[in-house]
Order: sequence, then C-alpha cells, then structure tokens
Amino acid sequence: MNQIESKSQLPYAEVQCHMAATPIEAPELLVQTWFNTDRPLQLSALRGRVVVLVAFQVLCPNSVAGAIPQARRIHETFAPNDVAVIGLHTTFEHHDAYSPAMLQSFIHEYRLKFPVALDCASAAGPIPQTMERYKMRGTPSLVLIDKAGQIRKHAFGASEDLRIGAEIGALAQESSAAASLARSSAA
Amino acid sequence: MNQIESKSQLPYAEVQCHMAATPIEAPELLVQTWFNTDRPLQLSALRGRVVVLVAFQVLCPNSVAGAIPQARRIHETFAPNDVAVIGLHTTFEHHDAYSPAMLQSFIHEYRLKFPVALDCASAAGPIPQTMERYKMRGTPSLVLIDKAGQIRKHAFGASEDLRIGAEIGALAQESSAAASLARSSAA
Amino acid sequence: MNQIESKSQLPYAEVQCHMAATPIEAPELLVQTWFNTDRPLQLSALRGRVVVLVAFQVLCPNSVAGAIPQARRIHETFAPNDVAVIGLHTTFEHHDAYSPAMLQSFIHEYRLKFPVALDCASAAGPIPQTMERYKMRGTPSLVLIDKAGQIRKHAFGASEDLRIGAEIGALAQESSAAASLARSSAA
Amino acid sequence: MNQIESKSQLPYAEVQCHMAATPIEAPELLVQTWFNTDRPLQLSALRGRVVVLVAFQVLCPNSVAGAIPQARRIHETFAPNDVAVIGLHTTFEHHDAYSPAMLQSFIHEYRLKFPVALDCASAAGPIPQTMERYKMRGTPSLVLIDKAGQIRKHAFGASEDLRIGAEIGALAQESSAAASLARSSAA
Repeated sequence: MNQIESKSQLPYAEVQCHMAATPIEAPELLVQTWFNTDRPLQLSALRGRVVVLVAFQVLCPNSVAGAIPQARRIHETFAPNDVAVIGLHTTFEHHDAYSPAMLQSFIHEYRLKFPVALDCASAAGPIPQTMERYKMRGTPSLVLIDKAGQIRKHAFGASEDLRIGAEIGALAQESSAAASLARSSAA
Repeated sequence: MNQIESKSQLPYAEVQCHMAATPIEAPELLVQTWFNTDRPLQLSALRGRVVVLVAFQVLCPNSVAGAIPQARRIHETFAPNDVAVIGLHTTFEHHDAYSPAMLQSFIHEYRLKFPVALDCASAAGPIPQTMERYKMRGTPSLVLIDKAGQIRKHAFGASEDLRIGAEIGALAQESSAAASLARSSAA
Repeated sequence: MNQIESKSQLPYAEVQCHMAATPIEAPELLVQTWFNTDRPLQLSALRGRVVVLVAFQVLCPNSVAGAIPQARRIHETFAPNDVAVIGLHTTFEHHDAYSPAMLQSFIHEYRLKFPVALDCASAAGPIPQTMERYKMRGTPSLVLIDKAGQIRKHAFGASEDLRIGAEIGALAQESSAAASLARSSAA
Repeated sequence: MNQIESKSQLPYAEVQCHMAATPIEAPELLVQTWFNTDRPLQLSALRGRVVVLVAFQVLCPNSVAGAIPQARRIHETFAPNDVAVIGLHTTFEHHDAYSPAMLQSFIHEYRLKFPVALDCASAAGPIPQTMERYKMRGTPSLVLIDKAGQIRKHAFGASEDLRIGAEIGALAQESSAAASLARSSAA
C-alpha cells in the first residue's frame, strides 16, 4: 500500500506521469456499476477512438475542483466519435463513506453527461480492482489510450488543459494504423 | 416543499437574503452528530461572540466550491473569541447518499477545523429539523448571529467575501450591550 | 531608494502592513491630474467617511490583476456616503512609459468609476511626492483612513477581501467622535 | 472601421473564429520595433514550425488577463523547435497612450520571454499595417500558422486552453509535407 497516495492535501498537485516507452495495451475496466450508459462499455469496442479515462473520488478535493471540471471540458470540446471520455470512481480509502447512491447523486448534481464506472471492490484489500490493474497511485489520475488501445499517458495529479489538449489533439490526429504501428515497432 | 430550492445547478448563484427588520433570536441547532468539538455546542453559550452559521451539503457544487472555502477563510481570519464559525450539514434531498461516515471523511479531506453539525432528520418529511426551524431555502445558506444571539443576516446562495467581511466586522465591533439594545428597541 | 520595492514579480504577494500604534493624520495627496471628479479632492473635506486609498501602477501585474478589481469591488459594495474609494497612480520606475493620456485610457478600458489621482513627480528623484510623504514601499499599497482622518492601516502587496471588508466594516461602524477619541487617547 | 471592435468591455468574450476553408498563406508581419529577439523575424524562415501569433494591447483587459498568460503558457508548454510563439502589439485606438518604452516596460514587468512585435502605424488611418493585412477585428486575436506557412485558425476574443492545445497539438503532428499538401489540394 505504500505506493498509494492521496493527493487531496496538496493544493497545487505536481503531475507525476510516465509516457510508457513501451506502450502497453490498456486492460479492460472491472466495474461494479455503470452510470450514464445503457450497457457496460468495453475498451476493445472503442478502437478507432482516443479514450480519456479520468479516475476520481467524490471526497477528494483535487478530483472535484480539478479533474471533474476538466473531464467535462474535454467531453464538451471533442467530438464523441473522435474522443471518448470515461469517468472512473475509485478509492483505496473511505470505503464506508461511498455507495452507488452517493455516486449517482454526485453525477446528477455535477451534471456529468459522460459514462462513469464505479470500480469493483477487491476481496484482497482496500485497493479496488481497476485501480490495481492500472497500478494507479491515487486520485485524480488521467489515462490516455490511443486508437489502437495502447496506454500513451498515465498521470497522477493535476494536468494542465493546454498540455492535455495537445496530447489528445495529437492522438486524435493519428490514424488507427499508425497507432497500431507504434505498438508493433515498440514491441 | 415548494419554497425549498437547490442552488446547485446555478453556476453563479444570486444571493437571496433578508436582513430581518425585526431581529429574532436564533433558535438552537437540532443536531444528530457533532464533529470537531468535544461536546455539543449551544448558541446560548456563545453570547458575546458573533456566530457565523454556514449550511452546506457535500454533493452541492456551490457549497463545495464556494461556501466551504469561504467558511474556512472566515475561520482563519477572525479570532475565535470574537467570531465562532459553525458548519451545518443539511439537505432535503439525496438522503440515501449521506451518512455520518461520509461527512466525517469530507471534513478530513477538506481539512475543516471548525465545529460541524449534522442536522437532525425529521420524521415528518424530507426537510431536516434545523433547516425547518431556520426556514432555510436550501444550501448554501449563511446566517449571521450577533453577540446578543439575534439573527442579523440570513442569505441563500453565494455571498461575496468583501460584503460578508464588512458585516462580520461591523457586528464584531458592536458591544454585547448594544446588540442587546438593538433587540430591545426592535421589540 | 532601498526601501522601495516592486511587488510585480511576486505571484503571491505577502502583505506587509503596519497598523500604526500611534495613528497619524493622513497627509493630503499631491496630485498632478485628477480623473473621474469635477474638482480636486481634499482628504480634509472627507471627514466623517472612511477613505480607502489604493495606490497602483498600470504596468504592475499585481496592481492590475489584484488591487484594481478589489478597489472596484469596494466601490460597488459600500455606500459612497460611508466609504470613499480613491485610486492613486504612483510609480518610482518606468517614468518614460507613463503619461496622463495612458492613465485616462486605462481608466476608460477598466471602467473605473471612482476618482483617480496621478501622483506628482518630484524634482528630487524618481519617487513621486505622495508616495514619498506616505512612505509607500511600492505598488500595490492600500491605506485605510478613518472618519477622523487618521491612518489606521497601511499595507503593501495583496490584501484579502475578507480581511479588508472586516476592517472597513469596523471603521464604518465607528462614530466620527470615537475615531477622534482614538486619536486623542493615542496622542 | 465598422468591422473593428474592442473586446475589452466583455467579461466573457465569445470566440469569433474562422477556420479558413481555403487556407491562405500568412502574410509577413510589418513591424515597427521587435523585442526579445536579436533580429527581425520572418515567417518565411519559420517553415517547419507551427507559429502561434498572439495579437494584444496593453490597455485591453481581456488581452492582459487572458491572452498574455495564455501565450506564456503556450510558450512554456511546447518545444520552441516545434512551436514558435510571437506576440504582436496592435491597436486601432489609444494611439497617444502607447510608446515603445511602454511596451518594453510591460514585457519586463510581465516577464515575457517570447519575441514581441510592435505593429507598424499606418499613414492611412488608425488601423496599423499588420492588423490591416490580417483583417483582425481587434484584440485579443490568435492566429495559428501551420508548418507550410498557411493560416489555419484566426480567432477574435478569448480561446479555451483545451481547444487551442488540441489545435496546436494536431498541427504539430502534421509533417511539413502534409501541410504543403493541404495547401495544394485546397488550391
């Protein structure tokens, strides 16, 4: 558990990110409950689109003040056929404070329109399953997945709009084939 | 229930306030759980100090982005012997989303240091008891109580720091006797 | 000149202020040009009102982003019969960049409605005359003058709205007689 | 002159932009004085880099509060070999308020590190020469020029970081050849 940290006490969070030298395929999300979607989403069904995965926590100040409004701006700025925004509610703490009903009320109050997934609890410990398989360090975290399904950025903490915009803009410009090629040549 | 409104969907909330022409004594708070205090607070025991009562809701965007940081600034700006800040968590909706554990986690994550009261649920309906007896219209609401225990301001929605500062500064300047006199002459 | 500093390079300016233990009478302003007023203002003619003197500089980032909007908020919040806001354009540097025409355009573009004074240049050196007699350390500076004409606060750098509001609110609550008394007892 | 408007009185400026259907080559800047560069810049010498041209005015509130900090963020976010930021001071009003000395002081106080050009006055009227040949509607304006020297975006008013970031990121991803091709196929 040492590698897990909450950013919530830092007013100006430093971004800790790694642009994977060897891109790896984004694992599927393990989800307890989906909101704002008729049926569960599969990353594998989103090939050809850039996916922006925003991990947040309702009681994390940096998530609420920073990551959630940014996710909403991303969702409003890019065409859904080019860029898919997915919220992931995940936490390794305050488990007794959270419930699907609470998350649903949050989504309603903050007028979120993009799909939101509630991470699956783990029988093994406090870290939920998607957080575990993505090796997230805490919330907020932001993951960029290219058109071929590869993780191209994984950032912990606040990210600047300008930089995120540039990275999404560049990924959206890639052809699916080029993204595939990037994977092959890196392998 | 028609008079109750949630401000949460308004990005720039208009203040709706009434400076009571005839000041009335602030009724005691009806509290389910207290946080950040060794024992329950009584307004009657706070005579001689200005009391700032900030009603908020964890899932209300205007409370979280506006009223809570403002309450913290008030708490940090004024000497506690002059001005007492009290948070009141109260809501007429999302009852299944809230719990004392959730409020405790919120207080921890947002580093609140002032006493916070969780309003008592009502058997009669969705409006909790303190919200009902203060006739609050929703959250956020701000109530200023003078040194003699009289309500001097009751505002629904966002309030500007400059104006709130001026009002608290003026009330703190009053002697308890003068505040008492204001009550008598108004009666 | 060593005691004069520009705050402009500090993104978050610390307030350096002194609440004069022995209040002194605010000296009259020495003004080259007045804007937004039919005739020159005399502080001596403003007894009975709190005066907020805001010293700024058009090319000083902290003045433009902080002090000027704050002065406008003060002007809009308080009744003019209670609180008079006066802007003072003053600088010990960039003298060749400034002109009355430039200040007039600034006042127009920023929609300032309160009186603004252009400090008198000094034959003796780069520090203009009002800055010199007020011993200002630079811009922005904020001076609060009570109803009896005494300096009650003199701050260099950014000031928080809540605190300034409280201080103006308290001074506005004083009677002119009480303010006078404060002067006498301090003398 | 009817088509020229100042945005300065609008607190939340609407972006008015056109993404030229038929890209046209960006005309060279007509410059009275250059700052922050050893020698005059030629757009023709910047082929292979994306150029971000930010037109501003020192006395325009939206320029100072919005466009200038954004230009600085762009300059800090992108590698100079990929993206060149150029400031252009230009105005059709307040001519007697401006001087090269004033612009130099502004650049110093706001710590601008990118090249800044002072637009050439026109003998024919109040609109300076570069503003005229770019048909700018006022300040702030933002022009994106691709690696082949074509204007790809021309916006009047505030632009969101996320969108600008995405557009710059996409242009930076283009090869010079592709940009050239875009020109040919559009011609």
